Amino acid sequence: MPELIRFAQTLMNVPNIHWIVADDANTTNYDVVDYLTYSSIPHTYLLTPMPEKYKQLSIKPKGVANRNGGLMWVREHATSGVVYFADDDNTYDIRLFQEIRYTERVSMFPVGLVTKAGLSSPVLKNGKFHGWYDGWIAKRKFPVDMAGFAVSVQYLLKMQNAEMPYKAGYEEDGFLRSLKIEPEEIEFKADKCTKIYVWHTQTKKNGPSQRTILQSKYNGTNLRILEKKMMIES
Amino acid sequence: MPELIRFAQTLMNVPNIHWIVADDANTTNYDVVDYLTYSSIPHTYLLTPMPEKYKQLSIKPKGVANRNGGLMWVREHATSGVVYFADDDNTYDIRLFQEIRYTERVSMFPVGLVTKAGLSSPVLKNGKFHGWYDGWIAKRKFPVDMAGFAVSVQYLLKMQNAEMPYKAGYEEDGFLRSLKIEPEEIEFKADKCTKIYVWHTQTKKNGPSQRTILQSKYNGTNLRILEKKMMIES
Repeated sequence: MPELIRFAQTLMNVPNIHWIVADDANTTNYDVVDYLTYSSIPHTYLLTPMPEKYKQLSIKPKGVANRNGGLMWVREHATSGVVYFADDDNTYDIRLFQEIRYTERVSMFPVGLVTKAGLSSPVLKNGKFHGWYDGWIAKRKFPVDMAGFAVSVQYLLKMQNAEMPYKAGYEEDGFLRSLKIEPEEIEFKADKCTKIYVWHTQTKKNGPSQRTILQSKYNGTNLRILEKKMMIES
Repeated sequence: MPELIRFAQTLMNVPNIHWIVADDANTTNYDVVDYLTYSSIPHTYLLTPMPEKYKQLSIKPKGVANRNGGLMWVREHATSGVVYFADDDNTYDIRLFQEIRYTERVSMFPVGLVTKAGLSSPVLKNGKFHGWYDGWIAKRKFPVDMAGFAVSVQYLLKMQNAEMPYKAGYEEDGFLRSLKIEPEEIEFKADKCTKIYVWHTQTKKNGPSQRTILQSKYNGTNLRILEKKMMIES
């Protein structure tokens, strides 16, 4: 909930947005739904659980069902706009949304604090595509972070088969390949990739709570109500 | 910078606020100042470095100089309003600010995700003060988190000697004791401490960057500009 709320409060400052919240769950999380309603941000809540067969894998393709579910919703409901895959634990400067709003096909821009390299960005020389900077290049045509690109809805609708593969580590690469675009054709945003408007921040996980809150001495107090909220958060 | 920006974007949704940014530094950070100016949030930027003598200690009283500096500014410039000590890595639901706005003397409320207990909160029974729930009680009269209380400016001005002690672990307790208030007199907010509107989230520190960005092959590219921003962030 804290990450959802913090991200929502960023989106509250962004005009003309539709937030697709794709939940990796089989059942509706009513705390999330209630908060989204309260937030007044135009939104759609989707249940997009990871298919069972991928849950068995040691390295799971996390977030693919969510993103493909979101793409399917866009294909059915949108005719214009720009799609951006936002994780709720990243940090977004609201200027990012103003930048990507004018994407014609596919745009890219730097992402801070990713991997040991500290940055993931296209490399430009004299304003033109020159290569990639990313902590993990491997055999990827597009070694970029999920937060480092955006796609126009109009272009997505033309690329009818574009989707994200269930292939851990190659989610971005596979999706961008399926968009049939070449690096030279990409629109480079954020002052030709010289500004950072998104950071791959991650929130520290707290260890499991000691649950001393369950002690009977707290019966009949406000802690019995707070306890339920803690269960949701942990 | 990401934490400052994220917190600023929360404050952008809060009306009638004055943000005192107290920096633990001897020299102005112009990236911070430029961002504050851009943000349009009414603010004051203070340089409040930790005195040298405390820097020698193994357990440092972090943030005391900042908070006392902020209090001094408030005593000189404010006649009404409410003081709240906000760390930029915590997560604040904007409803918190609406709650504390009506503090007459000292208000308190639950803080989520603090210590192994998962929560820090006053314990209420039948709406009245009953005790404390906190991961670390020790010999504190007020075992509460820095994010768990607010003080009205009018009351602060009456308590002319109230300030925060340079005593690691006892910053909140010492400050609240200096306000000469008893637990029974505290105003309990957030639906009588049954709702969580602030969380003690912490951002994972990335390891030191590998600095492969310094390789000469990136000379003449956008990475030379991005590199400077990375230095600031690390």
